[in-house]
Amino acid sequence: MPQYTPPVRDTRFVLEHVVGLDRHANLPGFAAATPDTVDAVLEEGGRFVAEVLFPLNQSGDLEGCTRHEDGSVTTPAGFKEAYAQFVESGWGTLAAPEAFGGQGMPHVVSTAFQEYMISANMAFAMYPGLAHGAIAALVVKGSPEQQEKYLPKMVSGEWGGTMNLTEPQCGTDLGLIRTKAEPQADGSYAITGTKIFISAGEHDLTDNIIHLVLAKTPGAPDSSKGISLFVVPKVLVNDDGSLGERNAVSCGSIEHKMGIHGNATCVMNYDGAKGWLVGEEMKGLAAMFIMMNAARLGVGLQGLGVAETAYQNAVAYARDRRQGRALTGPAQPGEKADTIFVHPDVRRMLMEAKAMTEGLRALCLWGALQVDLEHSAASDEEKQLSSDLIGLLTPVIKGYGTDKGYEIATNAQQVYGGHGYIQEWGMEQYVRDARIAMIYEGTNGVQAMDLVGRKLAQNGGRAIQTFFKIVGEEVAGASDDAAVKQVAGALGKALGELQAATMWFMANGMQNPNNVGAGATAYMHLTGIVATGLMWLRMAEAAARLKAAGEGDAAFLDAKLVTARFFAERIMPDAGALRRKIEGGAETLMALPEEMFLAA
Amino acid sequence: MPQYTPPVRDTRFVLEHVVGLDRHANLPGFAAATPDTVDAVLEEGGRFVAEVLFPLNQSGDLEGCTRHEDGSVTTPAGFKEAYAQFVESGWGTLAAPEAFGGQGMPHVVSTAFQEYMISANMAFAMYPGLAHGAIAALVVKGSPEQQEKYLPKMVSGEWGGTMNLTEPQCGTDLGLIRTKAEPQADGSYAITGTKIFISAGEHDLTDNIIHLVLAKTPGAPDSSKGISLFVVPKVLVNDDGSLGERNAVSCGSIEHKMGIHGNATCVMNYDGAKGWLVGEEMKGLAAMFIMMNAARLGVGLQGLGVAETAYQNAVAYARDRRQGRALTGPAQPGEKADTIFVHPDVRRMLMEAKAMTEGLRALCLWGALQVDLEHSAASDEEKQLSSDLIGLLTPVIKGYGTDKGYEIATNAQQVYGGHGYIQEWGMEQYVRDARIAMIYEGTNGVQAMDLVGRKLAQNGGRAIQTFFKIVGEEVAGASDDAAVKQVAGALGKALGELQAATMWFMANGMQNPNNVGAGATAYMHLTGIVATGLMWLRMAEAAARLKAAGEGDAAFLDAKLVTARFFAERIMPDAGALRRKIEGGAETLMALPEEMFLAA
Repeated sequence: MPQYTPPVRDTRFVLEHVVGLDRHANLPGFAAATPDTVDAVLEEGGRFVAEVLFPLNQSGDLEGCTRHEDGSVTTPAGFKEAYAQFVESGWGTLAAPEAFGGQGMPHVVSTAFQEYMISANMAFAMYPGLAHGAIAALVVKGSPEQQEKYLPKMVSGEWGGTMNLTEPQCGTDLGLIRTKAEPQADGSYAITGTKIFISAGEHDLTDNIIHLVLAKTPGAPDSSKGISLFVVPKVLVNDDGSLGERNAVSCGSIEHKMGIHGNATCVMNYDGAKGWLVGEEMKGLAAMFIMMNAARLGVGLQGLGVAETAYQNAVAYARDRRQGRALTGPAQPGEKADTIFVHPDVRRMLMEAKAMTEGLRALCLWGALQVDLEHSAASDEEKQLSSDLIGLLTPVIKGYGTDKGYEIATNAQQVYGGHGYIQEWGMEQYVRDARIAMIYEGTNGVQAMDLVGRKLAQNGGRAIQTFFKIVGEEVAGASDDAAVKQVAGALGKALGELQAATMWFMANGMQNPNNVGAGATAYMHLTGIVATGLMWLRMAEAAARLKAAGEGDAAFLDAKLVTARFFAERIMPDAGALRRKIEGGAETLMALPEEMFLAA
Repeated sequence: MPQYTPPVRDTRFVLEHVVGLDRHANLPGFAAATPDTVDAVLEEGGRFVAEVLFPLNQSGDLEGCTRHEDGSVTTPAGFKEAYAQFVESGWGTLAAPEAFGGQGMPHVVSTAFQEYMISANMAFAMYPGLAHGAIAALVVKGSPEQQEKYLPKMVSGEWGGTMNLTEPQCGTDLGLIRTKAEPQADGSYAITGTKIFISAGEHDLTDNIIHLVLAKTPGAPDSSKGISLFVVPKVLVNDDGSLGERNAVSCGSIEHKMGIHGNATCVMNYDGAKGWLVGEEMKGLAAMFIMMNAARLGVGLQGLGVAETAYQNAVAYARDRRQGRALTGPAQPGEKADTIFVHPDVRRMLMEAKAMTEGLRALCLWGALQVDLEHSAASDEEKQLSSDLIGLLTPVIKGYGTDKGYEIATNAQQVYGGHGYIQEWGMEQYVRDARIAMIYEGTNGVQAMDLVGRKLAQNGGRAIQTFFKIVGEEVAGASDDAAVKQVAGALGKALGELQAATMWFMANGMQNPNNVGAGATAYMHLTGIVATGLMWLRMAEAAARLKAAGEGDAAFLDAKLVTARFFAERIMPDAGALRRKIEGGAETLMALPEEMFLAA
């Protein structure tokens, strides 16, 4: 049956040698993140998710959520009790502001824990995960009264939170929103409309759910510039903080989905529900992006988290299942057959998964550090640099991370052969769960367009130039270790491909923006390879340095160096192909009339 | 709701201009395949599957199969009636030998129809599909008595057929088989053992099911050289052809799977069941490969078939769903938003699907032609050439075809955004169904090893040299049309990468066979790109020639030329990356001790 062990040793290595947590100890929040504290979070948090949440992952998938006639929703057996333990333990409050009852730890530490929670039970992790997005918006845009009223109980986990954007006719294009907000005499608004695909929209885990809802006020322009954000509690909250009347919002149905069955994806009906404006009227898009950017990084982490569990199980199966003989002769001659681990093509899938999950872990944590630094770095220059980096990397972590997460989960399933296709082995669930991460919070195509259409051009290309400079300098400054040199050489080459692709966009995008759109996904993947490659260069540097100094676990460091080289040999070659595809441009892509697509 | 239209126009184009059906009219079987007859098969057969089988595809997935306490299995509602129509119409008998009641048409014509049947309902198509494998083995290896007893009713579809290879401890490595066959005084054998993953092992569509079962006779060697093939009918057949007693074989359970829910995947228990040897004792492997090679081509066709339906629906959705505006300004200014077809990244997914499905269709049909020619070509040289080609291409069609089929289905689902993840839209089923094709009848890793470990080396590399020669000559002889020249240029380059990779294997495989195993999957994909590229060169040549002559539908021919160029620009660049990965060799792949795979 499936298993999961939090990769604490690897997380610690990344926090120490890629993120460099100790170098930031002088900053607010980081002071509390002493090595001992972080170790305790990783060890104890990891134990909690492995022992409490992981055992509910497969059963939650099989049972799913149930909506009752009165509109209430029951989560799978065990979720309610596990959630109560989660709240009690405080694992959800790690990075929340101390002012609202959080622990004020760096975002990067919380991110490390969140990866484990996703690995253990993605559907469960989404309940507090969605609340985090709502908390982020209220922390930045909520009025002091709203913050006081909602945040302490949202931070503690007593209340849930959601993001209500999508409507039947309106997904990416938020200008199409029809939900209406009519101002009332008491300063509140009456919210009316239908929202779909609302994760954790209704459930039995908390006494209240605080919905953040995009809607249009009367006379607002018919575009995304006309939308406002509202806070709409499921149960109205009295001035003394006690729960009052039920609000006019209810779950009309829950979706039957390919995966994440343990999370209730709801159609939410707002029928003149009482809501309050968050921030300014018609500035809802900016507030929404606060939620959205946090959510996109969280979804990128889902790609990694699910892939990690799938990978771990594939390794275990490959060490256990016997079939055939090694190409070089029987490896276990006393047995009737060798374990399938001996087969190079099985190892290929496992090494790709190892190289990608460890690389993505470093990238997600390095990205999380930028979220911390953009707010708390010592100088404005450093804040701007981190803000530029995380703006650039958010669509990459989301899009590249989840495309790769799905690929890894699919390969891990493949290692199981026929058993991978059978429910009871648990592997097909990881593929179904991983699939949604490529779609929601902006499809990966939308991420790619965000990267090439917005992030590349902002501030005269400052962010990508900063990224080129960082990668270029680390490549140029690579140490003499043979493995490091190999990785640096491959990364330098991949950087060259990315720079050439960027130049091609600049030369060809003005005359026809479709030339940029046509290469968007390839560019996102190319950037992902370079960014993950940078992480591997750093890991290789650290491993070589520690090894030379006789520090650390030699076997672990050797594995890092081999895996870094594998990444250079087996993943980075895609960079050249991606550049060539980008340089194919838009012509053949856009040439066919729509009616000629079907050959029938 | 999902839709499907058989791509008759494209099939006809391929049969005429890539397969060159009319050039083989002098051969047995082909004489009957006049253009009118073939047209009737495509039109009428296509109508049958679209009207009768496709409406049961989604409902069959939702309902699945049910095993009852007595071991009987009920297929989803409507399957039994549809199967009766299928038998009555004779669509299953197209390519079966006339001696046993078949129509004796070329395999290539039957393959064209089978693609449509898979597209309409893959789970349904597997019932007659598995019987075809069993028929193929009995036609070649069965005794005259066995053929007379079983084949007419199997060919007509009155009786089903299965392939029983896998056991709990034994998948790819058939030497591990434990099922026993004890010789009986009457010349029969008593078969005892458990087989798993038996598609169509038990169902309510037919009165009888003829199982072909691999088992070991007493004293047989403990390897794949010790296995024999047996025919084991579910119901014993009397000498007059009437049904007799129930045999001691039964369905112990059915699997809960990720997809193909409409097909019953059974655990089959043989409890001293009466069976008869097919062919010679301990020559079961050769007989099994007859079934297996037919099945592998059929599975490759599943990759194409499911991808085609997914693609068609994605095109329809992209023409209907409105979201955002074209990068070049509103395309449909009278509407609140443009259809998502205007977005380059949506078109990218659709063009990739179009280029791959049309390319794979040509490759599957050209491969099917080789199956015909290896038996019926006029000269021994031609027979050998076709036999070499289909031996080489079978693992490529299966492995590359199904990897791409899954990718296309996933991308088609992606076009739907969030709706793609919801069951009722039907897209997630295609992904789940397509997934199994990468696993069964030999995982795609096994296909890759078959290609590089067996097919490359056989007869001193004759098959791959023949393939190089064909591709090289068609590239060299490419006409002057600009599109053709572009495709030929890209194909020539990809061929160069494949030749270099082959040389690298020759230079590095002897010293360490893991160097070949490490590049096996990349080599299979590289061969797939070149083979599909050859198909696109032929289609481009034909389109350019017809266009210049003022023949055919100009819009259709223009679409072929654009899509051929797209394939050259957007798919072929992967060839270089694949070669570089192959040249990475086995070192880093095999370097890590197993226990260092987990970083935990």
